[in-house]
Amino acid sequence: MFRPEIKVLDCTIRDGGLVNKHKFSHEFVRKVYKALAEAGVDYMEIGYKNSDKLFSRSEYGPWKFCDDEDIRKVREGIENGPKVAVMVDIGRADLDAIKDRDESPFEMVRVAAYVKDIDKAIAHVNRFNAQGYETTVNIMASSRDRGPELDEALAQIQAESKADVVYLVDSFGHYYQEQVDAMMVRYKDKIVGREIGFHGHNNMQLAFGNTIEAIMRGANFVDGTLFGIGRGAGNCTTELLLSFLKNPKYDIRPVLDVVSTEMVPMMKKGEIEWGYIIPLMISGAFNVHPKDAIAWRANDNPERDNYRAFWEKTVGTGLD
Amino acid sequence: MFRPEIKVLDCTIRDGGLVNKHKFSHEFVRKVYKALAEAGVDYMEIGYKNSDKLFSRSEYGPWKFCDDEDIRKVREGIENGPKVAVMVDIGRADLDAIKDRDESPFEMVRVAAYVKDIDKAIAHVNRFNAQGYETTVNIMASSRDRGPELDEALAQIQAESKADVVYLVDSFGHYYQEQVDAMMVRYKDKIVGREIGFHGHNNMQLAFGNTIEAIMRGANFVDGTLFGIGRGAGNCTTELLLSFLKNPKYDIRPVLDVVSTEMVPMMKKGEIEWGYIIPLMISGAFNVHPKDAIAWRANDNPERDNYRAFWEKTVGTGLD
Repeated sequence: MFRPEIKVLDCTIRDGGLVNKHKFSHEFVRKVYKALAEAGVDYMEIGYKNSDKLFSRSEYGPWKFCDDEDIRKVREGIENGPKVAVMVDIGRADLDAIKDRDESPFEMVRVAAYVKDIDKAIAHVNRFNAQGYETTVNIMASSRDRGPELDEALAQIQAESKADVVYLVDSFGHYYQEQVDAMMVRYKDKIVGREIGFHGHNNMQLAFGNTIEAIMRGANFVDGTLFGIGRGAGNCTTELLLSFLKNPKYDIRPVLDVVSTEMVPMMKKGEIEWGYIIPLMISGAFNVHPKDAIAWRANDNPERDNYRAFWEKTVGTGLD
Repeated sequence: MFRPEIKVLDCTIRDGGLVNKHKFSHEFVRKVYKALAEAGVDYMEIGYKNSDKLFSRSEYGPWKFCDDEDIRKVREGIENGPKVAVMVDIGRADLDAIKDRDESPFEMVRVAAYVKDIDKAIAHVNRFNAQGYETTVNIMASSRDRGPELDEALAQIQAESKADVVYLVDSFGHYYQEQVDAMMVRYKDKIVGREIGFHGHNNMQLAFGNTIEAIMRGANFVDGTLFGIGRGAGNCTTELLLSFLKNPKYDIRPVLDVVSTEMVPMMKKGEIEWGYIIPLMISGAFNVHPKDAIAWRANDNPERDNYRAFWEKTVGTGLD
């Protein structure tokens, strides 16, 4: 697939940070940024712009806050690297810490919101747009919010927001390709003259297939992480995206190096886990938030590998 | 998806046997058969009917040969279990060891053949059909044999063979869903009045997505293995298939039990490997046989985790 409009956004540090409380070392983050620069990847999302009035700096690492100084250290001396994106969660950010684009070391702000918070998301996006940033709205948990509210939210984004990209996000890893098709139809019906993005999760080993499907249906922004690191089952892998996309500007080899030297050893070490883990597969199949499955996998739960018990618990608690 | 015609064939023991020289214990094979029986799975493929004139019984385990007596021991006392299938490779089987269906402990023979061997495959299938078996032709490496020879082979199977099912096999784990679509169109154009099957490999994490795609396009026989065990990257997982298919006769829970108690511990033990392994991802992307990637992963290769080197080697050797 070669469509020059397609952009790859690597969110290894942001989504991977959800697994280790955003405690990646500066050295590691810089290594990832350098590899993505050499690979020709378009964007790197580096973390959240959260407020330290709400979250403790002793509990969380630097990529929960993404101080400008930390981002500058990552980029220093690396020319022509990916544009840097930060994520803003509704109600958790310190908006005053986000200076105008021309004083900042990042280019894009992604606003993550549930359908119910779409008014707030639009206000955020328009503020960041006025400050000079590229912006996205990432509509989370779309597999749970598929009622008419979703169409209204899309229409409202189209009418009122300055967002450059509107993302379809499969937060629970629940979709298969036919559902992605149907959602892309709804998005394209409402979102005109701006790009559509897709962010999958790999609970049912469908993140890459669904991303391909979204691309086939017109999505031009696609998210990946190195070796799929991310909360729970993780994400579409960046190396698979680069192996699939035929744009000659992409070079998979620097990414393979980081997967070799950093990601596979990190997974083997076992302090954090992600990937094809049956309780996460089950939460994806049931279309529920991964938090219960992640809690089930706690090291001190003697039942963590009792998958039947988790399945029966999930049936029992139903769709909440 | 609920279409009563859809049949699930679990080939854990057969495809998984390629990873451990078919040395699964009788106890394990029986446990798998019992779980599949309770889960309502339709078929279980138990191994190859290979000749011990060609392969050594000291080098390989029982499921390379599938003696009738071994199969009987697995099934003994388990009523209403899956039908049992054995696989026959062209030129490797001891045809005289395959008695007529009414004297045998298995119901189906699957004949695996490259396009070039399709005449032999048809002769085999017709022989087994005359002996009373259900039969399939599994056309291997279809991603490499996509010329007009494939259409001729399909036409010939349709005209001359008694096969009940004709399989599209993605031996190299190379397809993504659009290619599965295109292949299903070619199959349906030629294969009429019998079923089409799909057997995927998971090199690019697309085995399940491609299987769904094949189902959407009309395939009614789909293969899976427990926790995806299989040569190289492995297969579509049986538990994902059962979570997707809505036929009320399927019960995923006995399968989850075996994944808990047998498959995850087997993977953790590390004597055999399968799954998302970058050299296998690369061989899938390049559409080459997995053998070089598997050789690269040998424990005594100090470069086994140097993925860039394997990528460059694969580029260098090209399409072998």
